[in-house]
Amino acid sequence: MLNPCDPAFAAHLATMVPQDVLSAPEARYLEDPRGRWHGEAGAVARPRSVTEVAVIVRACAAARVGIVPWGGGTGLVGGQLMPSGPAPVVLSLERMAALRGAYPDENALVVEAGMILSDVQAEAAKLGRMFPLSLASQGTCRIGGNLASNAGGLNVLRYGNARDLCLGLEAVLPDGTIWNGLTRLRKDNAGYDLRHLMIGSEGTLGVITAASLRLYPVPAASVVAMLAVPGPEAALRLLTLASARLPGMISAFELIGRMGFDFLAEVMPDLQAPFGPVPEWMVLVELGLPASLAPEATMAALYDEASDAGLVTDGVIATSDAQATALWHLREAIPEANRRIGAVSSHDISLPLSAVPEFIAKAPAALAKLGAWRINCFGHLGDGNLHYNVFPAQGRSRSDHENTRDAVKACVHDMVHAMGGSVAAEHGVGRLKTADLAKYGDPGKLAAMRAIKAALDPHGIMNPGAVLTAS
Amino acid sequence: MLNPCDPAFAAHLATMVPQDVLSAPEARYLEDPRGRWHGEAGAVARPRSVTEVAVIVRACAAARVGIVPWGGGTGLVGGQLMPSGPAPVVLSLERMAALRGAYPDENALVVEAGMILSDVQAEAAKLGRMFPLSLASQGTCRIGGNLASNAGGLNVLRYGNARDLCLGLEAVLPDGTIWNGLTRLRKDNAGYDLRHLMIGSEGTLGVITAASLRLYPVPAASVVAMLAVPGPEAALRLLTLASARLPGMISAFELIGRMGFDFLAEVMPDLQAPFGPVPEWMVLVELGLPASLAPEATMAALYDEASDAGLVTDGVIATSDAQATALWHLREAIPEANRRIGAVSSHDISLPLSAVPEFIAKAPAALAKLGAWRINCFGHLGDGNLHYNVFPAQGRSRSDHENTRDAVKACVHDMVHAMGGSVAAEHGVGRLKTADLAKYGDPGKLAAMRAIKAALDPHGIMNPGAVLTAS
Repeated sequence: MLNPCDPAFAAHLATMVPQDVLSAPEARYLEDPRGRWHGEAGAVARPRSVTEVAVIVRACAAARVGIVPWGGGTGLVGGQLMPSGPAPVVLSLERMAALRGAYPDENALVVEAGMILSDVQAEAAKLGRMFPLSLASQGTCRIGGNLASNAGGLNVLRYGNARDLCLGLEAVLPDGTIWNGLTRLRKDNAGYDLRHLMIGSEGTLGVITAASLRLYPVPAASVVAMLAVPGPEAALRLLTLASARLPGMISAFELIGRMGFDFLAEVMPDLQAPFGPVPEWMVLVELGLPASLAPEATMAALYDEASDAGLVTDGVIATSDAQATALWHLREAIPEANRRIGAVSSHDISLPLSAVPEFIAKAPAALAKLGAWRINCFGHLGDGNLHYNVFPAQGRSRSDHENTRDAVKACVHDMVHAMGGSVAAEHGVGRLKTADLAKYGDPGKLAAMRAIKAALDPHGIMNPGAVLTAS
Repeated sequence: MLNPCDPAFAAHLATMVPQDVLSAPEARYLEDPRGRWHGEAGAVARPRSVTEVAVIVRACAAARVGIVPWGGGTGLVGGQLMPSGPAPVVLSLERMAALRGAYPDENALVVEAGMILSDVQAEAAKLGRMFPLSLASQGTCRIGGNLASNAGGLNVLRYGNARDLCLGLEAVLPDGTIWNGLTRLRKDNAGYDLRHLMIGSEGTLGVITAASLRLYPVPAASVVAMLAVPGPEAALRLLTLASARLPGMISAFELIGRMGFDFLAEVMPDLQAPFGPVPEWMVLVELGLPASLAPEATMAALYDEASDAGLVTDGVIATSDAQATALWHLREAIPEANRRIGAVSSHDISLPLSAVPEFIAKAPAALAKLGAWRINCFGHLGDGNLHYNVFPAQGRSRSDHENTRDAVKACVHDMVHAMGGSVAAEHGVGRLKTADLAKYGDPGKLAAMRAIKAALDPHGIMNPGAVLTAS
């Protein structure tokens, strides 16, 4: 059993670190972006060094006090908030935001965990390189949180998930040991890959304090198009075609359904689709190209070939940076429109690529048995990752469906699971999906996870209740 | 303590599986390619299904009998051979070599662990795709072993190590539980990444029985060149230049030193360098290009730009497949020439890319204090992975240096470690480098590894003595 971070423990901990490291928890550490969770905490710790992190973790381990690691607070599944149980220490990495080293010739950057993602991108840009991780909250989220949750985002198709962009880690393990794995090696088979175990464990196996990151050359040119497609099946065939013609050059391939534009028309009417009438399905495609390929001509050639194959029916190719930005802005505004309309249930799911069209075709009929819905299905098609969000019918609100929400979620998740997919694709498990993990997870994997958790964190102090529920 | 697989246990085990699964160990299961190890075994098990594997593992766990998983037997670090201790069961996956599924539209293939790597490549080719893992032993090694050891090889720069080519795994855990993680998802954050923990653990945490693999489109054209460079520093700058000009299109970037050609001249005189006189340093570059880029012209443009920058001094661009094959054959013959000459000590090391030139510059002087050597330094420069092999001076043999071998190895490994590198880059730890891992490994990581091993394999039956020595 854990003990709370009560005033006595907070006072004890305060003697071990510089005076201003510990403070009472401000509201911002106890809220999440969607306003669905409210966390508890006995204190917030804001250390300035890995040594201070280690001191705090060791003291918490000795006293059996829980720790909730805190990055930018942007997680959508409650991984950064502990709503009940003995009040933990919130451990914010915000003061550990330094650049530790820049290695342009290696395409590598070493940063502390608290660096904001857009600052990581900016540091890479200073070197004439890019750090490809890109997601909606990049101005607020911090790289340690991105790694702890193995963030996805817009460029996974080409550059991989957060884990694929990490060469090495420094972390404090649950007993307060500092693991220095901050290497910059492209090949290293010296023992188990702790890095990949830590990445995606959502703070339950330790606190990431710094990371070596993989940078990429900036493509000489890029070109963006929004293409109307006959449907998801054609969109996937278009992706196969584009991948064969331009291997490794497709930076993004985003599916957008007409409902996304209906929502924009409803709540953000300044934003209009570049088509009239709006087609049922569209893809936003970005190519990042070498200097030897002319961007607009390359996209136009792809369009022509796809058109001949019946895979696109209409399209807009941006001919300026402003147009490209405007097309992206449409895609990026959809989550905000969703928020304003208010989903009954949102789902961050992934499927084997070839199962995506079948899922999109079948899910509405299954959901219709539970009520009348508007479905906004969009997402990172190249990764098989859909944000499949279910909204009330026009004129109704999410509060009308409080009693149906769980059934809607179960309907979607059951279908995804039956088709070989995952119900926690890029946002993680956090505390929102612990029951889903227990329900859908492979029993052998769950047992192994529990054994690893117990081995590395025998007192269960690291992010209690996240990912794995108390067994 | 483990028990041996004695005749009584072998007879007991034989009752649980079909009659021909268990047999006495033939010599081929007890030898390694370099003839440095000799293994012991009480029996060889050759199961046909994951269920049979599970039965065997469960029985061994109950009886505390060790298991040595066995793929193609090509490992270079003794991971597949147990030279001493209670005789284990050698568990060969050779009969589990089936294709479980082909998904060209997903760029995915599901195969059993015993499929030979070149057969995996052939299955991909049947789909018009490629499986990029490529290494010298590909006609013999098996994909399960490649994954267990996180194999590297020639195409890591572009496509990643074996772990990067794996979407999912099926494995039998040390208690006999079957973990079904054979998903084909590009994004899945549902819990800890057991896949990456299992990959590279060299059979010490379980037996991989099947894998979902990531395929890639075949480049429309490829072009190979051997370029003379002023030195390793220039070679790295050439790589940076090429990566910026042709991002994601450099399939291989191999460093070759003149000593490699001296050795070929000595023991395989039919193979001659395409230069006269042979330069001190060369790189073998392969580009894999889209149809829109003309291969020879693209390589020639790169050559010209590199030449203007002083990064190349001479070069041969293959103008036919036969010439390309011949250039590759030179590179691929070097390990065989090394074997014929007989190294005092071979080192599979990796370094941060920017440290490579300094290491290559400094190591000979350090080694000279121990004797007179010929050094053949070659390898996967784009990955910072060198095969740094130390040979006797001309006219002497490796047996003249038996007493110096450990000092040579320690000299190289100490330098690598001091420069932030790894002494187990792509071949793994096996049983050859357990002492190195204990010496150079981060103590926090080692403790975490031991805790994980004890949690998943409390009786220590899985590949005893590999990676981690008994603590």
